[in-house]
Amino acid sequence: MAQQKKMVEAITSRDVDFAKWYTDIVKKAELVDYSGIKGCMIIRPYGYAIWENIQKDLDARFKKTGHENIYMPMFIPESLLQKEKDHVEGFAPEVAWVTYGGNEKLAERLCVRPTSETLFCEHYAKIINSYRDLPKLYNQWCSVVRWEKTTRPFLRTSEFLWQEGHTMHETAEEAKEETMRMLQVYTDFYKETLAIPAVTGEKTEKERFAGAKATYTIEPMMHNGVALQGGTSHYFGDGFAKAFDITFTGRDNKIHNPYQTSWGVSTRMIGAIIMVHSDDDGLVLPPKISPIQVAVIPVAQHKPGVLDKANELADKLSENYRVKLDDSDNSPGWKFSQYEMKGVPIRIELGPKDIENNQCVIVRRDTREKLFVSIDNIEKAVADALQSVHNGMYEKALKNMQEKTFVANTHEEFLDIAKNKPGFIKAMWCGETACEEKLKDETNGVKSRCIPFNEEHLSDTCVCCGKPAKHMVYWGRQY
Amino acid sequence: MAQQKKMVEAITSRDVDFAKWYTDIVKKAELVDYSGIKGCMIIRPYGYAIWENIQKDLDARFKKTGHENIYMPMFIPESLLQKEKDHVEGFAPEVAWVTYGGNEKLAERLCVRPTSETLFCEHYAKIINSYRDLPKLYNQWCSVVRWEKTTRPFLRTSEFLWQEGHTMHETAEEAKEETMRMLQVYTDFYKETLAIPAVTGEKTEKERFAGAKATYTIEPMMHNGVALQGGTSHYFGDGFAKAFDITFTGRDNKIHNPYQTSWGVSTRMIGAIIMVHSDDDGLVLPPKISPIQVAVIPVAQHKPGVLDKANELADKLSENYRVKLDDSDNSPGWKFSQYEMKGVPIRIELGPKDIENNQCVIVRRDTREKLFVSIDNIEKAVADALQSVHNGMYEKALKNMQEKTFVANTHEEFLDIAKNKPGFIKAMWCGETACEEKLKDETNGVKSRCIPFNEEHLSDTCVCCGKPAKHMVYWGRQY
Repeated sequence: MAQQKKMVEAITSRDVDFAKWYTDIVKKAELVDYSGIKGCMIIRPYGYAIWENIQKDLDARFKKTGHENIYMPMFIPESLLQKEKDHVEGFAPEVAWVTYGGNEKLAERLCVRPTSETLFCEHYAKIINSYRDLPKLYNQWCSVVRWEKTTRPFLRTSEFLWQEGHTMHETAEEAKEETMRMLQVYTDFYKETLAIPAVTGEKTEKERFAGAKATYTIEPMMHNGVALQGGTSHYFGDGFAKAFDITFTGRDNKIHNPYQTSWGVSTRMIGAIIMVHSDDDGLVLPPKISPIQVAVIPVAQHKPGVLDKANELADKLSENYRVKLDDSDNSPGWKFSQYEMKGVPIRIELGPKDIENNQCVIVRRDTREKLFVSIDNIEKAVADALQSVHNGMYEKALKNMQEKTFVANTHEEFLDIAKNKPGFIKAMWCGETACEEKLKDETNGVKSRCIPFNEEHLSDTCVCCGKPAKHMVYWGRQY
Repeated sequence: MAQQKKMVEAITSRDVDFAKWYTDIVKKAELVDYSGIKGCMIIRPYGYAIWENIQKDLDARFKKTGHENIYMPMFIPESLLQKEKDHVEGFAPEVAWVTYGGNEKLAERLCVRPTSETLFCEHYAKIINSYRDLPKLYNQWCSVVRWEKTTRPFLRTSEFLWQEGHTMHETAEEAKEETMRMLQVYTDFYKETLAIPAVTGEKTEKERFAGAKATYTIEPMMHNGVALQGGTSHYFGDGFAKAFDITFTGRDNKIHNPYQTSWGVSTRMIGAIIMVHSDDDGLVLPPKISPIQVAVIPVAQHKPGVLDKANELADKLSENYRVKLDDSDNSPGWKFSQYEMKGVPIRIELGPKDIENNQCVIVRRDTREKLFVSIDNIEKAVADALQSVHNGMYEKALKNMQEKTFVANTHEEFLDIAKNKPGFIKAMWCGETACEEKLKDETNGVKSRCIPFNEEHLSDTCVCCGKPAKHMVYWGRQY
């Protein structure tokens, strides 16, 4: 077995070098390849199949909540990007500029969309006239570009794939409800589909999206104690609507500006899946989005009847699951390692002895637990095993998040935890940006993650300045 | 009824002004909106839903034939685009160039992909080492940019959505088979899903894709006698492989270059759907890709029991079809016109009299034929009606193509047909590019469409120069 293992190239241990472990996994599990363009990645078939499963699940959730998909141009004229002051300040420094079309210099530069608020607003100004046209609940699946200096596959790339929802509403209240509804859709998706728990709440003013009145976030905790901004939902008020002159005739027959939201998640979620769930043998994928849910590995496949039975089993399971029967010439041990590296949630081993006993062996990827089950009950056993893998992965990730969540009641405690204990720090805050900046400087990078919806009252004073506290904040380092 | 009709804005008659009729339809049926960027369109929810249905159907066909999806960067460094001489000559004049990332001028210009052969080749050079790594059967769904001077929604836009398959094979024979297999997938899709017949065959050397050894095409005929290049499949030989140094160790233990194909179809197909099937009342959509397959319109919906029964009917049909029950305050006549404009294949009318008789009325969009059917048999009746609509649309389009296909045996006949009878011209050709150019000039735009797979022997000599003929060619004007 040890010898077989070597046939699948070893990866760096997670505890030895987390960053190296991460890049080893994305390469060895064949999720991405680097391209010749700085910071742009090639998403390989196995990585893209994960993204397709994510899209399918999320898209159904968006449609169920009344959203329609559309497609906007990938370019934004410079003058359009500049229409909302805060927005352009936030994005202009990191966009890619198209200056030539064919051999001709363009009269106006076009940026490759870093996000599409401005394009949606220009369109909304044309199609919204009456309260009867509201709400508009649009979403777009596309790629966006933000010129990043330091990049890492999935986590931070110059081009990435995402969805961006952009909605318009008759009242501020409805828009705020939408903002919260979509944050909840993300939270449910993380839990039910990715098996990832997270803290959710509102970003501080400093961390808000460029141009937003309020930004809500979902923040899962990675295995190494570093947080990840896993998705955001923004409430814009009517700021963009005013800047873009979007108006409608209300029920009162007067002219109003509509209220706006946007929300998005990206291929970055694949980074979260890796860093929350995976281990030293490779990927561990949540069953719901794993390209292969069940790997069937025949043992002693040259013996009569083994391949027939394996095929029969695989065919039966294929009716309800994504199944791969591997009858290649590689040894069973090599195959075990291979599908472990690929994060396949369960494998089924089936050899002559098993067939004799009308049984097979189910092995869970997350715990390595072996179950001997009757072939007659295989469908129920597989369903149960996949559910157990999902639940087990979620519980393990929750335990990790809880163990890596600390309370700081004093400035000293905050600095000590920041230095010695990677994870979330719960601490009180006065509401001033100056304190956020000071804490970030003192800790070399610990930032406010969010003000959670259910704040605890830890103490009366700000952990930084000692003035009266306004909020409890989750703090932490981030990817 | 005439009065009701006016409530849905009228469109230009197809026979009066085909181009205006086309743009009226794309706007009135809410398929697209124009954006502020020249030649870039906004695909609105109804248009995008058609594209989603097209994608779903085609993607299943690609996966069934063994292809995997991947995602490549949207940028191509100038030096990479230049690696294959013919390819860069074909595309460089029409690409958009990114010259700045944020505030910094880039050391090397990046073009926004007009097609991704070069990116795939760079990746293949890294991942193909042995014959065991072949074939590679990859596909990508993405948007591409070609800086067009004259644009028209769906037909020719500076940015458009498409899929591009890129495959690598051990032998020339296998690659050629793949090229033909994918052309057949397109042909089946056009017939079975879009209800569109077409001529298929090989492009002449002049019309070949930049860098290809052979280009195959599917050419449907629009209602007005103008052809459309509806999809292409290219055989590259090992030209790109040599330019990009892609090699593998063969079964003979020697180093070889693999053989390559690429193939693609785009949102242009939505233009074909409009121009082949639609009429003066708006869109006529093939049932397989229509966002709404059945519109249920209650008549006298304020009368007791009508809405209940309509809901019951809609719910039952929703199990297998995309159904829209319209219980808005608009009049039934307005609704009829509305769903005709949107091209919904069948509508079901249901009023108090119908309910009394346990029946409803099915109205076909393509023929306006009315069928009175028992509510008890509604599911079978809807299934049959949708199939009849599909078949009827295909037959009508086939008849149009046949009626608009002419034979030219002499140069004079060719010029006469080109001037007076819009459609395909079948005529013999010597094989020389000079004759293609001459005919194009003389006719102000009639070009070779393809050499069909089953050539007819119409005569012994080229319709242009009178020298011995090598091929029968389909000629025609194109979008």
